[in-house]
Amino acid sequence: MSLMLKEILEQPQALRDTFQAERAHVLEFTKFARQQNFRMVVLVARGTSDNAARFGRYLTEITTGIPASLAAPSVHTLYRAKVDYRQALVVGISQSGEGTDINLVLEAAKRQGGYTVGITNEKDSPMAKMVDDVFLVHAGRQHSVAATKTYTGQLMLFYLLAAALGTSISLDSVSEIPDRVTETLKLIPELRDLVQRYRFMNHCVVVGRGINYGNAFELSLKLMETCYVIAERFSAADFVHGPIALIERDFPAFVFMPPGKTFNHMRELTKRLRALRAEVVAITGAKTGIASANRIIRIPGGTPEIYSPIPYIVPGQIFAALLAEIKGLDPDKPRSLNIVTQTV
Amino acid sequence: MSLMLKEILEQPQALRDTFQAERAHVLEFTKFARQQNFRMVVLVARGTSDNAARFGRYLTEITTGIPASLAAPSVHTLYRAKVDYRQALVVGISQSGEGTDINLVLEAAKRQGGYTVGITNEKDSPMAKMVDDVFLVHAGRQHSVAATKTYTGQLMLFYLLAAALGTSISLDSVSEIPDRVTETLKLIPELRDLVQRYRFMNHCVVVGRGINYGNAFELSLKLMETCYVIAERFSAADFVHGPIALIERDFPAFVFMPPGKTFNHMRELTKRLRALRAEVVAITGAKTGIASANRIIRIPGGTPEIYSPIPYIVPGQIFAALLAEIKGLDPDKPRSLNIVTQTV
Repeated sequence: MSLMLKEILEQPQALRDTFQAERAHVLEFTKFARQQNFRMVVLVARGTSDNAARFGRYLTEITTGIPASLAAPSVHTLYRAKVDYRQALVVGISQSGEGTDINLVLEAAKRQGGYTVGITNEKDSPMAKMVDDVFLVHAGRQHSVAATKTYTGQLMLFYLLAAALGTSISLDSVSEIPDRVTETLKLIPELRDLVQRYRFMNHCVVVGRGINYGNAFELSLKLMETCYVIAERFSAADFVHGPIALIERDFPAFVFMPPGKTFNHMRELTKRLRALRAEVVAITGAKTGIASANRIIRIPGGTPEIYSPIPYIVPGQIFAALLAEIKGLDPDKPRSLNIVTQTV
Repeated sequence: MSLMLKEILEQPQALRDTFQAERAHVLEFTKFARQQNFRMVVLVARGTSDNAARFGRYLTEITTGIPASLAAPSVHTLYRAKVDYRQALVVGISQSGEGTDINLVLEAAKRQGGYTVGITNEKDSPMAKMVDDVFLVHAGRQHSVAATKTYTGQLMLFYLLAAALGTSISLDSVSEIPDRVTETLKLIPELRDLVQRYRFMNHCVVVGRGINYGNAFELSLKLMETCYVIAERFSAADFVHGPIALIERDFPAFVFMPPGKTFNHMRELTKRLRALRAEVVAITGAKTGIASANRIIRIPGGTPEIYSPIPYIVPGQIFAALLAEIKGLDPDKPRSLNIVTQTV
């Protein structure tokens, strides 16, 4: 079994451990955050962690009403701008905690008045040491180059942070997520059959929206780095503002469509894609409204949309790991990559 | 001549008209902005206008120190979140001013305490009527489906806004941009030869960083919507965090590399791409440090990096328009698209 698949399987336990270990931290942080009266949340990350941050951005704005954004690291590392971060909560996300540029941005943010938090796997990492507070992913060390358990662990911590900053996240609902992931792992035999159909897929598009937009980036990244599939990723709305011109007969489109606020828009999109004779793969727990899909990756259980991203990405991770294998690639040895990438 | 190419040629005049017509507005807005003491800038757009916003985001943070971000429209239109926009300058960007979702976000921002500004071509549009203040692109009506003159017009207005919000933008330097564009239009014969080489290009990646990151999105969008090339786009830093695994022999990579703060990083990237036997097309005014490029689109004149995005995108627009033609496509009739796209 590949390290990637092994770490995918570790996720229910890793999520449970992360939730348990950091739960108390949330209560403490809630009090502190009230005093600080944060006016904005700024997220700083690269790669998979940046995809987690994209989820964190939506989750934060939707559930806390605090404006959130993804930092542009080069503004700090190359242009050396002095950005006013008073009353800003600046969150760095890095599995290794070693990303030089991320840590440089956190240092700059601190100097400019921001309160810094790190989300990382490694409690002794440079990031963990330099931030004002750390939320730890308890997933054990990552050995796979393609991040899976650290991505979902980071998502879990964003739920805890959102619970601390707002009032609409239910920790009870969050605590159910690991069991939901266990259910999705049962899809492995079905996905092993499904990937055969995509043996010769060289390009595709992945579409998500809102709370699952980060997942569209993450599935696309997994397909690029482990399967060398040229995987575009778009929000459903941006997609129809231009890139849909790409779509022709047979163009594969993976669509995240959990029941909820975004469902009708995703359904309209899949209809349009089907009319263009694209190949639509719907990732959904919906039982109806998915007639336009050529294939369905059916997510078990009736997960509320806001808690859907972790259970919805797991089959995507499995899909990428298994597709790499049948393409004759080793998902643990993506060409040109290492676990820790240094950029400035 | 295609409408697209015709509008590309109109850009020097459109930019000059936009600068002249809105210059006085800047001084007025400067005083107002000082009183308001904006703590953040939030940009709201879709499609090409969103690529302009991406530029605006970097320009604002680098030259004014005010935290800037791109809004996530669905947070407002689908999730109906109440985001705290007190002391926020919320800027909607839309050539037609008719984008329903953009206008819904602006309305929500107003209700939540934000001060709203519109950047649009159409002074009688719904957007122009509902915002607190309007900056107009004076480019004449857009008839081409693929936006060109409105994109650069929007960039021009972001320079004026940045001049109003900070102290480091020189209006004299901004006033030189239209002439710089005139110089780049002289590249047309050369680009007409160059596109032959890419007649059978089906996919590519476009890489930019910092102030030219929005241009990477825009060139990629032009290649997708007019040439049906599957064009990925990345920042140079994000690219090496995973997607570089895609790159193999012959993979085309278009790289924005103006002399300046980002140049050394772009040069390192082109070296790495060349070692992977990719086909590197450098868009640059640099005379040295570009040995790794297979082809160079040479930007005339020594434009300072911060003022480079408008002159640097123009040859990309021309490249896309001419490539579409030799691929036997009509750039004015992209399949599946109209000028105004409505999304919620």
